[in-house]
Amino acid sequence: MTSSNRLYLFDTTLRDGAQTQGVDFTVADKVAIARELDLLGIDYIEGGWPGANPTDDRFFADPPEFQNAKFVAFGMTRRAGRSAANDPGLAAILQTKARNLCMVGKTWDFHVDVALEVDRAEYLEMIGDSLAYAKTRMEEVMFDAEHFFDGYKANPDYAMACLAAAEKAGARWLVLCDTNGGTLPHEVERIVGDVVKKIPGERLGIHTHNDTENAVANTLAAVRAGVRQVQGTINGLGERCGNANMIALIPNLVLKMGFETGLKDGALQRLTHLSRLLDDRLNVVPNRSAAYVGTRAFAHKGGLHVSAVEKDPKTYEHVDPETVGNQRIIVVSDQAGRSNIMARFRQIGLEVDPKDPGVARLLEIVKEREAEGYAYDGADASFELLARHELHTVPDYFALHSFRVLAERRVNARGQLIALSEATVKLDVGGRRAMEVGEGNGPVNALDAALRKALLPVYPELQDMRLVDFKVRILDAAGGTAATTRVMIESADAERRWSTIGVSPNIVDASYNALYDAITYKLFRDGAKPAERA
Amino acid sequence: MTSSNRLYLFDTTLRDGAQTQGVDFTVADKVAIARELDLLGIDYIEGGWPGANPTDDRFFADPPEFQNAKFVAFGMTRRAGRSAANDPGLAAILQTKARNLCMVGKTWDFHVDVALEVDRAEYLEMIGDSLAYAKTRMEEVMFDAEHFFDGYKANPDYAMACLAAAEKAGARWLVLCDTNGGTLPHEVERIVGDVVKKIPGERLGIHTHNDTENAVANTLAAVRAGVRQVQGTINGLGERCGNANMIALIPNLVLKMGFETGLKDGALQRLTHLSRLLDDRLNVVPNRSAAYVGTRAFAHKGGLHVSAVEKDPKTYEHVDPETVGNQRIIVVSDQAGRSNIMARFRQIGLEVDPKDPGVARLLEIVKEREAEGYAYDGADASFELLARHELHTVPDYFALHSFRVLAERRVNARGQLIALSEATVKLDVGGRRAMEVGEGNGPVNALDAALRKALLPVYPELQDMRLVDFKVRILDAAGGTAATTRVMIESADAERRWSTIGVSPNIVDASYNALYDAITYKLFRDGAKPAERA
Repeated sequence: MTSSNRLYLFDTTLRDGAQTQGVDFTVADKVAIARELDLLGIDYIEGGWPGANPTDDRFFADPPEFQNAKFVAFGMTRRAGRSAANDPGLAAILQTKARNLCMVGKTWDFHVDVALEVDRAEYLEMIGDSLAYAKTRMEEVMFDAEHFFDGYKANPDYAMACLAAAEKAGARWLVLCDTNGGTLPHEVERIVGDVVKKIPGERLGIHTHNDTENAVANTLAAVRAGVRQVQGTINGLGERCGNANMIALIPNLVLKMGFETGLKDGALQRLTHLSRLLDDRLNVVPNRSAAYVGTRAFAHKGGLHVSAVEKDPKTYEHVDPETVGNQRIIVVSDQAGRSNIMARFRQIGLEVDPKDPGVARLLEIVKEREAEGYAYDGADASFELLARHELHTVPDYFALHSFRVLAERRVNARGQLIALSEATVKLDVGGRRAMEVGEGNGPVNALDAALRKALLPVYPELQDMRLVDFKVRILDAAGGTAATTRVMIESADAERRWSTIGVSPNIVDASYNALYDAITYKLFRDGAKPAERA
Repeated sequence: MTSSNRLYLFDTTLRDGAQTQGVDFTVADKVAIARELDLLGIDYIEGGWPGANPTDDRFFADPPEFQNAKFVAFGMTRRAGRSAANDPGLAAILQTKARNLCMVGKTWDFHVDVALEVDRAEYLEMIGDSLAYAKTRMEEVMFDAEHFFDGYKANPDYAMACLAAAEKAGARWLVLCDTNGGTLPHEVERIVGDVVKKIPGERLGIHTHNDTENAVANTLAAVRAGVRQVQGTINGLGERCGNANMIALIPNLVLKMGFETGLKDGALQRLTHLSRLLDDRLNVVPNRSAAYVGTRAFAHKGGLHVSAVEKDPKTYEHVDPETVGNQRIIVVSDQAGRSNIMARFRQIGLEVDPKDPGVARLLEIVKEREAEGYAYDGADASFELLARHELHTVPDYFALHSFRVLAERRVNARGQLIALSEATVKLDVGGRRAMEVGEGNGPVNALDAALRKALLPVYPELQDMRLVDFKVRILDAAGGTAATTRVMIESADAERRWSTIGVSPNIVDASYNALYDAITYKLFRDGAKPAERA
């Protein structure tokens, strides 16, 4: 009942992924992630639920422009006892900038009875009404069939009637959801096998959760049974045990099962980057054991394995790590990473001869620094500076002599609680010693202010540069050894955004290192001339 | 071709799990984990590879006494050009205290040709010889058919000939291994379906890896096709992306598929404990999203979900969390409604009348604070303190007067670059003014040190409390308004871990707020009495 080999990828990182306990995307996070997904060639990007919280309202009021993807809002069927046209939840969604809607509705009789407490026949009308009304305002609407598998097991006729109501109302896709995540692959195979006898697979989607550790397998089973829209999240983000992991699904479906998608050339090679970018945004440690993209995914430890891999990597590797932008890790091989580094050079726009000894030296430096706690995946600007520094193309714009930062909290003379931060810097710029003091919200902010005050007279370019994000992680805190602090800073000017990194046992020191890179990058990109000695 | 419903569970945490990059079990770890597995009723416990490293030699020289399990050594077929009786590797294994052997051998012609460089027919003899000789010294021997699925795809006749050689030599089990982890569930189903036509499922085992995120599904597919021995590791430990996760497999096989095992009464309820025990031994943070046993596995965040779960947990739970020793968690977040808050009260053990005006007041405070940047999702201890504070059940253990923190970087008299942080605090405790100074890696660390120094004489409970994680986020930095800093701190003592949060425009101030909650929670939970005025 399914004739096409083309799969449609639907990413719900920004909606269902945002439901994860402890996850709290900012609007800037949503914009950055949506842009990456769009560049990859994902067909649908679900951005959130307008009306549910202020972040989603702001994101939907001013979404980025998409090159490839359809931008989707999530919403719910109308309330009982109200017309769709008068439903405030629906109204909030239909007036956003999204022209596509994924509308969730029940399909499990138990939920209609117990959670909604609505008559079953009336609920079928609610599905039909809501979608039909939304269809008049949207380019594309689809039906998110919540608890479809549980519903089908309990009452297949009712579950199918819900799909039929949505289909009749004009839903482009009927997405079969395993909302509670308890269904096993052989059950998915059987139930989808039944459904495709009545509804073509080109109209069906699959949305699974990982509560039995089978989200990926359940998705593959549904696709093999005929479903052609695949929903998932980056890194399997999502509430409870997470959603189906798009990062594992894509290579399974494309490399191993031969399906066609809308992914652009080179998209698979960006999966490792995409995975780590999300973790950086969420300030979490990447899962080293992640399928395809984990740092351990192609690491070879056993001596026997290593010697076989050296003879032929196929002996112990199911795919070539480069196909997903990852790399082989072998203790004895300095080949590891060279192609990766070369690929990064091309991305920056640096022309380098692969035989240049600087490449091997840089590889060594990156390895050493990563062992110290640096992570260049989310810090493109720091990587670029490091590479250019090795090739002697970045000048030193100034030289720090010392800084001192003070933060205090006390009750002032009028009995008010005050918190203040102050920083002093001494540095050499343009052959002169500058000494300045700055204030700020916190020590890093104060240090930033003092640095600018010292540098602005010489480098007016710094005027429009600002700090937009600042993240801190303590590494090895649980290890009992002295903790190392990693600071990532995102900066912006009118034209671009860039990320830099600093590592030190001391957070202020680490922040200074990241600030130094941020300022240097800005000056270099603007073509600033190092100030001559006075 | 398989008539029995009895599955045999084979745990290889201490052998294949020990291959994980970064994992290094001590003998004491191995003893503790093996004892737990034995008490559970696991049929086979593979302890390691005697002769491969000193830890395994010591563990096998003096293993614990097992109540239920068979203790298994891992080893390899003899080398080419030597008799089994004269093979030093085999000899090392046969003289240990283990009476059961799992012997790995090739089944992929490509590996025999490229990795071993041995004639294919000769290799069949090596398998037969080695197992037959081991069988004369051991109670039970089994054959670990490395790369069986890749081998079967490449040359099914040769792969089956390897199994036949092992079967003929007396192997109790022939374990089909997906060593590189690249096989998908539908392939496992097809290939095992072929194998059971020739070898009964009661003689077959399955051993999978998670390189496509399908290790659990591949195992289930093999079992459904007839295989009756299941290999896996606790938490899916194992090299690269890990082995099949026994912690997810067991409830899937027992609760959902109805198989019989040798597990003792109450074993399933110990799974959550077992999972966290391994993480504690390895000193890693437990995977919060782990199927069945993660702290998020039964966490409910959205307000709609929560109100349905309160009506009937089956609405959003695929199994009862208590069946696997886990618990339901109701998360407080910006979507929180009254039902979330009430559910949280019950979990903390707070008896509150839902009509109490304090509930509505608390809800308002939570909303206000979340608008300021607080996120109680990941900060249970701060939420509990806030709630108890509203109900006047938390004392003030001390009162801060002021603190001052200094961080500097400079070149010292000997020309070395140094970074140092120092903090002073003034606070009232037990009616006295304490004034102390502390040093640290960074300002927060220094502040923590100074606070402890001031409080320890009065509250010796604080001695065993330590800071295990520290995360910082800048909120709304992109919004153009003054940035707010959110600090989350995780603390631990010998018994528990707890998370607290602080928000302020100043990072040091935010950190102080989170530290204050962390210390107060510790003292409250330990039942400390607020120090009387002197």
